[in-house]
Amino acid sequence: MTATTAAADASTNQTKSMDDIMALCKRRGFIFQASEIYGGINGFWDYGPLGAQLKKNLRDAWWQDCVMKGAGGQLGPNGKPVSIVPVDSCIIQNPKVWEASGHVGGFNDPMVDCRESKRRYRADHVRVMFSGASGTDPQRMFAFIEGDDDSRNQALKKMQKYLKDGYEPHNVGYSDLMSFDWSAFAERIVGPDVATPGTLTPPRAFNLMFPTVIGATGDIEDDKAYLRPETAQGIFINFKNVVDSTRVALPFGIAQTGKAFRNEVTPRNFTFRSREFEQMEIEFFCHPSETKDWYDFWKKWRMQWWESIGLGGDNLILREHDADELAHYAKEGAGTSDIEYRFPFTAPGYGELEGIADRTDFDLKQHKEHSGAKLEYFDTTRGELAKNGQPKGERYLPHVIEPSAGLDRGVLAILCESYTKDDSRPSPEIMKFHPRIAPIKAAVFPLVNKDGMPEMATKLTLELRQRFGHLGFIESDAKQSIGKRYARMDEAGCPFCFTIDGESLTDQTVTMRDRDTGAQERMAMDKVGDFLAGKLGVDSSSSLG
Amino acid sequence: MTATTAAADASTNQTKSMDDIMALCKRRGFIFQASEIYGGINGFWDYGPLGAQLKKNLRDAWWQDCVMKGAGGQLGPNGKPVSIVPVDSCIIQNPKVWEASGHVGGFNDPMVDCRESKRRYRADHVRVMFSGASGTDPQRMFAFIEGDDDSRNQALKKMQKYLKDGYEPHNVGYSDLMSFDWSAFAERIVGPDVATPGTLTPPRAFNLMFPTVIGATGDIEDDKAYLRPETAQGIFINFKNVVDSTRVALPFGIAQTGKAFRNEVTPRNFTFRSREFEQMEIEFFCHPSETKDWYDFWKKWRMQWWESIGLGGDNLILREHDADELAHYAKEGAGTSDIEYRFPFTAPGYGELEGIADRTDFDLKQHKEHSGAKLEYFDTTRGELAKNGQPKGERYLPHVIEPSAGLDRGVLAILCESYTKDDSRPSPEIMKFHPRIAPIKAAVFPLVNKDGMPEMATKLTLELRQRFGHLGFIESDAKQSIGKRYARMDEAGCPFCFTIDGESLTDQTVTMRDRDTGAQERMAMDKVGDFLAGKLGVDSSSSLG
Repeated sequence: MTATTAAADASTNQTKSMDDIMALCKRRGFIFQASEIYGGINGFWDYGPLGAQLKKNLRDAWWQDCVMKGAGGQLGPNGKPVSIVPVDSCIIQNPKVWEASGHVGGFNDPMVDCRESKRRYRADHVRVMFSGASGTDPQRMFAFIEGDDDSRNQALKKMQKYLKDGYEPHNVGYSDLMSFDWSAFAERIVGPDVATPGTLTPPRAFNLMFPTVIGATGDIEDDKAYLRPETAQGIFINFKNVVDSTRVALPFGIAQTGKAFRNEVTPRNFTFRSREFEQMEIEFFCHPSETKDWYDFWKKWRMQWWESIGLGGDNLILREHDADELAHYAKEGAGTSDIEYRFPFTAPGYGELEGIADRTDFDLKQHKEHSGAKLEYFDTTRGELAKNGQPKGERYLPHVIEPSAGLDRGVLAILCESYTKDDSRPSPEIMKFHPRIAPIKAAVFPLVNKDGMPEMATKLTLELRQRFGHLGFIESDAKQSIGKRYARMDEAGCPFCFTIDGESLTDQTVTMRDRDTGAQERMAMDKVGDFLAGKLGVDSSSSLG
Repeated sequence: MTATTAAADASTNQTKSMDDIMALCKRRGFIFQASEIYGGINGFWDYGPLGAQLKKNLRDAWWQDCVMKGAGGQLGPNGKPVSIVPVDSCIIQNPKVWEASGHVGGFNDPMVDCRESKRRYRADHVRVMFSGASGTDPQRMFAFIEGDDDSRNQALKKMQKYLKDGYEPHNVGYSDLMSFDWSAFAERIVGPDVATPGTLTPPRAFNLMFPTVIGATGDIEDDKAYLRPETAQGIFINFKNVVDSTRVALPFGIAQTGKAFRNEVTPRNFTFRSREFEQMEIEFFCHPSETKDWYDFWKKWRMQWWESIGLGGDNLILREHDADELAHYAKEGAGTSDIEYRFPFTAPGYGELEGIADRTDFDLKQHKEHSGAKLEYFDTTRGELAKNGQPKGERYLPHVIEPSAGLDRGVLAILCESYTKDDSRPSPEIMKFHPRIAPIKAAVFPLVNKDGMPEMATKLTLELRQRFGHLGFIESDAKQSIGKRYARMDEAGCPFCFTIDGESLTDQTVTMRDRDTGAQERMAMDKVGDFLAGKLGVDSSSSLG
């Protein structure tokens, strides 16, 4: 492989190793296994100091741009500013909410159990090798879990024995499995996780919501409730209250960020598919005739937004769903698109970062029917004209365009995109975060820890902290060689380091060192703040944010 | 009552009505009952547009001041800047965490059940009237729930019948009940919520953690997990990872904000005691010899902080716990203090807003024992001096000072403190939020919706939104009379309104109207931004935050 090819592959994430990225995340305090000192808990991840601030910066950027500035301050397809208001709803709601939304009845993954090990797998993650053509007797099937090399190797090993008998291996997935006559195969299937032959049950539904019990009875039947599997429903059930308590007029959006929970059977790929995760969702309400315009608007702007915070190039795509992929609520709408990112574990393929869906009036209609509440909106700008020339108004259930993004997936995409290995540098691992998102905004170093340099460094640190501290960390470090300190900041993704040296004491200048290029530049100490303000997209000095 | 007395009472919240405050919160979109269209769900509240932004502003102020600026940028008792780093841990953790912390075994409230209605009450909320002296036969007892007028009136009514027989009513609470011979009374107790005579069981323990089930088995026994009842443990279990992955050195703090859940049996007082709530917690780790200094430091600074965002005067107190109030982890420490606020429903008493506790090494010791992890810290600045004059170092379990604040309670205190009724004003209800916390930062009005005024208003709105939009809403409103628009902004707590009138068109000035005084002042339109920056504590222009 030539150097050029390697660089090209790196930029498409194909040569980046998730093991390297995960190791850096733990070593530098971005992401830890939850409950690690107790052996962890499958599907849950905690954010360390740098990760918590990175996640907060991404959430705040979304909030500022989407909510407070209304889609970045641009005009919508109707030529007016885009109006978005926030809510902050509970994780636990009345269980009737999830009956109306369809999650109690329909939020299921088809699951298969191994009868011997009692373990359960998502049917679409189970793949099967079988010997002989389907229908040939005796057939032998060996199951393994997609992406799990151990179970695949085990299946291959077992298959070897039958290959000697002249059988050929096949490798089929979920859709083929569904068409099999499972009863005929049952006794010949081997569970993916057991040493002895096991058998898989036919697929059956498994609800993904985490149950809990409210109140004092402790009765799981009478007082069952659920942890929300999405933040969206907390918006729909508050639609009427928001309309009644504010001056919003259609079209407008309601947004919220917050935790959601799905009892994933096979959580995997680091934080990509975890059981506890955070969403950033907008439900944008409009007249049914305007859905296509707003659908196109949000698709375009959401792509621009992810690009603005550092993702992009060939690693970010917008993919329109095929008709057979559409969710139940989207069947009759303008469609559904995914903004997808090429993660190292999906490359050369892509994984979902955000979905933009036309949910039609599905949710409001369901809540209207289940709750009996009147959820129609009275639009005074529509309807026939009355004698006085004013519209008579029109009453209707708004349709909804939903841009729904995963915050943890956004952080993960940023971590993967930023991770750069440059073997020409003394410390080759660099996190090239966009300055706006970087958890550490700047670092200040005294070249040596004496001769008045530490005092100058402390002074500059405190000044920068006062001005930019609300945006992220301003670090100070006096230990080890200056090269090691730069390397530490490269790994943490700090975009700019400022070093105080002997010259600083006489002429009040410092050395600015750029993370991405390693280039150094001399600048006046009293210009550092304005330099940083420009790089962070902050116009001028600010002490609160 | 003289005007002076009324004003004094209002300032101590004694004449403020929670019904008025709750009505305003719903009407203006601060706080809604969760799942309201489904009849609600007891103990859960959703935040509407103004409430969500108010809550975010308070959380961000805490994060900026506590975490990013390290206790506001002041020096600690050791003369050095205060070092705090954040984490963001999961709500669901390995259940062993809660065994170690004592929550599985000990996180219990004593409960009594009504045998007939099957309802359960916190024993310390049940009060009993009984007829005749204790020990006299036949005795009759009628239970009611403290603060619940309906159940109290019911008990009084039943009591009337026996008063005719010459019995006298007594009114006893929890501690007396505990000393009763319950078996002797059982058949004579009347459940608070039933029409027919009921009986209450003796008090027994009830765990306050919400249970759930992880993974695919659905087995509540084998795979039980809990929703965290506090964010603190997510910090303790990550202590070692934080020390290993950052350059923090003792003393330092780890902070996080996030949801916590307690299955309160009798949620009440609006958002004060709810089942889902958000905490803002710092665990500050230090050498055992320094706990007293840091305990005093945090008590003092946390009081100052609440004052800085608009609470204070006689409504805010710092109260040192008595020895018999101390939690199990604090028995051997420097003590525990509560920062308490005089809510209208506690007045003339107070309710807890934040606790500052010396948790000693209780938590780290428990996790060390239960997990087997080495959680001692090696302090290179301590220990005997070696031959080279350097300290040999000391290995110890740090002690912890915990400032733990309730975010929802903070919001509620701010709502109560800000709520002002001034009958001399056309619209008497005013929310006097501190400008830094106010969800709406400014409003811009065209005096009339024509003659070029709307265009000037839109221009100013967009300018202010670009500069201050990351801090809160910049509203624009052209409907109804200017007086009604001011009144609407008073209710929403918007500190400054700017009106464009005929004069503005010729001399480029606007009228600034102050929420608290109603006073108006003429200023140049191009000075509005700097005026607002000064009021919001932002030094100069800033487009990102």
